[in-house]
Amino acid sequence: MRTTICERLGIEFPLFAFSHCRDVVAAVTNAGGFGVLGAIAYSPDQLDTELTWLDERVGGRPYGVDVLVPGKIDPSALDRRTHLLEAVPDRHRDFVTHLMTKYGVSAPGQPMTAVADEFGRRVTAAGATGLIDVALKHRVGLIASALGPPPPEMVSRAREAGVPVAALVGTVEHARRQVEAGADLIVAQGTEAGGHTGDVSTMVLVPQVVDAVAPVPVLAAGGIASGRQMAAAMALGAEGVWCGSVWLTTEEAETAPAVKAKFLAASSLDTVRSRSRTGKPARQLRSAWTEEWDSGPESPGALGMPLQMLLAEGAMARIGAAAEKGEPGAVELVNYFVGQVVGQLDQVRPARDVVYDMIAEFGDAVERLRRLSEG
Amino acid sequence: MRTTICERLGIEFPLFAFSHCRDVVAAVTNAGGFGVLGAIAYSPDQLDTELTWLDERVGGRPYGVDVLVPGKIDPSALDRRTHLLEAVPDRHRDFVTHLMTKYGVSAPGQPMTAVADEFGRRVTAAGATGLIDVALKHRVGLIASALGPPPPEMVSRAREAGVPVAALVGTVEHARRQVEAGADLIVAQGTEAGGHTGDVSTMVLVPQVVDAVAPVPVLAAGGIASGRQMAAAMALGAEGVWCGSVWLTTEEAETAPAVKAKFLAASSLDTVRSRSRTGKPARQLRSAWTEEWDSGPESPGALGMPLQMLLAEGAMARIGAAAEKGEPGAVELVNYFVGQVVGQLDQVRPARDVVYDMIAEFGDAVERLRRLSEG
Repeated sequence: MRTTICERLGIEFPLFAFSHCRDVVAAVTNAGGFGVLGAIAYSPDQLDTELTWLDERVGGRPYGVDVLVPGKIDPSALDRRTHLLEAVPDRHRDFVTHLMTKYGVSAPGQPMTAVADEFGRRVTAAGATGLIDVALKHRVGLIASALGPPPPEMVSRAREAGVPVAALVGTVEHARRQVEAGADLIVAQGTEAGGHTGDVSTMVLVPQVVDAVAPVPVLAAGGIASGRQMAAAMALGAEGVWCGSVWLTTEEAETAPAVKAKFLAASSLDTVRSRSRTGKPARQLRSAWTEEWDSGPESPGALGMPLQMLLAEGAMARIGAAAEKGEPGAVELVNYFVGQVVGQLDQVRPARDVVYDMIAEFGDAVERLRRLSEG
Repeated sequence: MRTTICERLGIEFPLFAFSHCRDVVAAVTNAGGFGVLGAIAYSPDQLDTELTWLDERVGGRPYGVDVLVPGKIDPSALDRRTHLLEAVPDRHRDFVTHLMTKYGVSAPGQPMTAVADEFGRRVTAAGATGLIDVALKHRVGLIASALGPPPPEMVSRAREAGVPVAALVGTVEHARRQVEAGADLIVAQGTEAGGHTGDVSTMVLVPQVVDAVAPVPVLAAGGIASGRQMAAAMALGAEGVWCGSVWLTTEEAETAPAVKAKFLAASSLDTVRSRSRTGKPARQLRSAWTEEWDSGPESPGALGMPLQMLLAEGAMARIGAAAEKGEPGAVELVNYFVGQVVGQLDQVRPARDVVYDMIAEFGDAVERLRRLSEG
């Protein structure tokens, strides 16, 4: 395909794969798309290891790295130098203990404090910069910022290295601000997407963002897991698509088996935008966890970011381990970020096949449109 | 264009215009699209007058009629033969009185009881059948049912008259049920649409519905107010598009001036799905009315359908009259059903120009896609 983005990044298909799993990133990049590794789960050293692994497998083909830089974070998270988790109020901690008891979750899991501290530091601007430094030592073709405008250091370092910066947005206003902050590429993400999303749907958001930031190229995200949806997104004016959910049920994905089974069984009605995992509205599979936090009678309500994320990540590590042992209460609680396209995901396939099928269906959709419009 | 729908209905463009205003219906039908008159506001006699007016203006070109047949209605609405409004609890009535005082709405408006009775009867299956009988005496080309499966009498009378029946749905499951109930055409409506909508976005819903009901043709609704969005919807597999919001700011529309001004100024973030006007979740412009009902500390919560609709319609008639006199409190309260595309509506144009611009932009979008895919 001949979109601006394909030419600028040297790729065959403007199909971007956001994944926390290096195998998915490598498979999509090798199939002619563009894999983007979500770096939030890694320390700088771990990220270095992952990117070295990738460099050895993609034969010089381009891939990207995504960091999470929240525009606003709960200031109490920055006050404490040692244990971020101390900023979590007792009644929130007690509610998690109550849930563990109510659902009979047995696994003790990792000590929550250390995990939480490490995790919390990474979502600050300073934490993100450490990851970016590592990324720029490798042959990354794109740095993406998932929340808030990219910090100035991030933009200037990427510019020096000649690496374009992408930014995810859910409103026209944010898209304008991101471009002012130096973003080279905008990912306009509709409310139907998995993870942190706004209120406006992809169908409505994308053309408005395209018009607002032209000539900056726009990728569409949210609701895209097939070639027809890719064609629709590009009919809206996008230069390509950014997909996350569709990779979660691929062979390569490290999605926990209990979660993968839920995804394969879910319909598009089974997701919810909830603050219960990160403190900001994030679309995820509806589960006992989201129900208890969002409408349970004893819920203290979600904290801000990153405190709710620290609390949830620690609990989810325990819940996940218990779910893998088949504990029914843990299986009720367990969930993960996913978009409304989860209703289309009903088989496990290699990521490469997903890419090829999307591109083939894209071609068919364009050909059908051409025939219809010539009538 | 050569879609199945164009051939079946004898139209040039598969662009359906849902409107309560006969002038919009006539303008779109005469421009080569397909106007559909929302009949809920009319008694059978009034509908007869409207359709006679239309027949005289469209020169034999096809148009349709839409009735509202809720699948479930509050049974208390059917218990009372005389005054439906008596079924409204005092505390809901009191809350409306409180709002009128708080916002200084002066206009006495029409006596609410009579309006409410007439209105309430029309949304029952029997009321809808009366409207359908009138419609079938005219040269209607389509009967549409906006809520719930079409009642069997509706399907059989339309079949006898050789008129296809369309049904609006927000889920795959409802689409299957509508086809089983005899619908000839499915309108798959995403959450971003104005009026009664479900949770799933157009981008996600349409391909799933297309696959579930094939070979029954599907129109896409929700988020469609431009040629790019029309092309996107058809890339998803739709045979055409069903638009409502885009006509509300046309020259022909009878939208109240205060509401039209709000629409022209609104962004796509200014709508909300609220039960406060009909008792079922319906997307509308966010206003003091939706805020007070949905999150005001004194709100008794919305009633079911049709009681909430009776209450709201009566109040909105008064509020609308006061808003037209420029009363600031009434202007804060006043709103109307509209989809997220309201953010794209920034000028008043003739409906005919909207049709022609959409078709021209559709052609450009398809041509752009063709060029990109040939690269």
